[in-house]
Amino acid sequence: MSQVNKQILLAARPDGEASAAHFKLAESPLPQNVSDGQVLVRHHYLSLDPYMRGRMSEAKSYAQPHPLGTPMIGGTAGEVVLSNHASFKPGDKVVGMGGWQQYSVVDAAQPGVLRKVDATRIPLSAYLGAVGMPGVTAWYGLVKICEPKAGQTIVVSAASGAVGSAVGQLAKARGCRAVGIAGGAEKCRYVVDELGFDACVDYKAHADPKSLYLALKEATQQGVDGHFENAGNPTVGGGVARMNAFGRVAVCGMISGYDGQPIPLAHPQLILQSRLRVEGFIVSEHMEVWPEALRELGAGVAAGTLRYRETVAQGIEAAPEAFLGLLKGKNFGKQLVKLV
Amino acid sequence: MSQVNKQILLAARPDGEASAAHFKLAESPLPQNVSDGQVLVRHHYLSLDPYMRGRMSEAKSYAQPHPLGTPMIGGTAGEVVLSNHASFKPGDKVVGMGGWQQYSVVDAAQPGVLRKVDATRIPLSAYLGAVGMPGVTAWYGLVKICEPKAGQTIVVSAASGAVGSAVGQLAKARGCRAVGIAGGAEKCRYVVDELGFDACVDYKAHADPKSLYLALKEATQQGVDGHFENAGNPTVGGGVARMNAFGRVAVCGMISGYDGQPIPLAHPQLILQSRLRVEGFIVSEHMEVWPEALRELGAGVAAGTLRYRETVAQGIEAAPEAFLGLLKGKNFGKQLVKLV
Repeated sequence: MSQVNKQILLAARPDGEASAAHFKLAESPLPQNVSDGQVLVRHHYLSLDPYMRGRMSEAKSYAQPHPLGTPMIGGTAGEVVLSNHASFKPGDKVVGMGGWQQYSVVDAAQPGVLRKVDATRIPLSAYLGAVGMPGVTAWYGLVKICEPKAGQTIVVSAASGAVGSAVGQLAKARGCRAVGIAGGAEKCRYVVDELGFDACVDYKAHADPKSLYLALKEATQQGVDGHFENAGNPTVGGGVARMNAFGRVAVCGMISGYDGQPIPLAHPQLILQSRLRVEGFIVSEHMEVWPEALRELGAGVAAGTLRYRETVAQGIEAAPEAFLGLLKGKNFGKQLVKLV
Repeated sequence: MSQVNKQILLAARPDGEASAAHFKLAESPLPQNVSDGQVLVRHHYLSLDPYMRGRMSEAKSYAQPHPLGTPMIGGTAGEVVLSNHASFKPGDKVVGMGGWQQYSVVDAAQPGVLRKVDATRIPLSAYLGAVGMPGVTAWYGLVKICEPKAGQTIVVSAASGAVGSAVGQLAKARGCRAVGIAGGAEKCRYVVDELGFDACVDYKAHADPKSLYLALKEATQQGVDGHFENAGNPTVGGGVARMNAFGRVAVCGMISGYDGQPIPLAHPQLILQSRLRVEGFIVSEHMEVWPEALRELGAGVAAGTLRYRETVAQGIEAAPEAFLGLLKGKNFGKQLVKLV
């Protein structure tokens, strides 16, 4: 077994845009045994997610800032290599919050910190995406906030991403028209041709908000009943402007805002004019829906009816650059780092 | 009986700010008798409300634009002078949507268009304010959207107005801390000293958004659990920034937006960070709550525990100027026009 555990630490807090200088590669000695109730997990995959940007800052967010000098927080999928807990044995595939490092020691006696998963019918990496936090995020915002009904139109931004791709496919499964917003012709083709959305608007082809609005209007001729906001400006404005009366807007991510610049919502009076409900949510605060959501998501992935795409960076050293790319929308689908 | 019915017509649609030029005084012959099922009502009071600005424009709103060349829409309280309907007799006090005119002929057979009211315990004008649409608006947004619990903090903008004053008093009756936002020291004194709010922030004393935010912070040291948005910029931004996690924002009016200029919401990412629910509503779409709301509001006015203030313009000719003043916040309490 390796003697070292390579880690990426949070080295400094960004004042504005995050950069490689805010991270630092470190090595710590790898424990060769574990205490009672503990498990040593070797991470196969690290998940990179927009929420991590919020944790880097001191700024008010829904979570505590991440402590400086410690490995960045992050979801991981891996394999038990040492266990001193009766429920886990070497070779078990597990999902947890191991952070930006190759290994983690987990106090497995704490409920929920480590979850065994079946990697025979569902690829291990999917537990960080379509059958994990991003998938449940899509499910919660769509099902519990947008409350879609057959025949309605659902719009989702960052449509080719881990969350957005699930939102549209879950909406289609409910008889809705699914319209994506994504950056670039290639992503839009994927959203329509491979994920089966009814339409996708390329926001990069519409620098002018008016032009973006008209493209979205063309794609949503019956208006929009549910908008899943997953990216931030400029799509919020355009999306809200197309909303039908009593429409629902689920707000789960505002990547463009994570670097600290404000993203004004240009026409909040539409909230009144169209009697919208706009609701922000954090999926980890709604653990009660996870079992139901994971059943639908897992069944879809196992059956091949819920599709997804991954961008995989190689090696823990690549995590910062991959993460910075994610914040700029350079990934295509779920951004992962492969660690073995 | 008079031979003429003076009216204010919508003469032109504003492109930007509304002005006197968009209205026109007219006279029509007053009917001397009414057909089967009809009632002739002499209006004692006309209600002026911000929503009317929306109806003047062609712009997308929650309602059809008001037709040019016809009397402006508006709530009225008055007295039956002629009746050809079994349920109404001359002298009955009634509330309806008679418009900006001295008299209206009402097809009383249509359900809900004309409502008899008891003006012995409650002043007739109150049926256009605290015991009418503004009162029910306050009740719905507070009770059904903010869902206040004892000990929570509720903030309301335009706090001295017809809606805002009821919001704060209803919140106090539920054991909440009520904090108003109003324009000017006199209005703020009234809100605290006469209406019994715990505090009131004078937004005119804080031209700088940061200064307004700090004043609101001082008044809401435990954060804000429910925000009743009743005015528009600049209070939306400051209010939302003080919201506690899972706070509710009821959006019922954005006066500052009615003249067509956009009011950007500066930090919509707070919707996510604080997991807010922001919901717009139009009280006329929730008729099911009116009986319950009117019971509480009527009892409060009759008992003197629900207080309100009126600004009364004299004569139908004064309606346009009074309305334009309302849009600029020149009124103090419910804006009415007295017609007899």
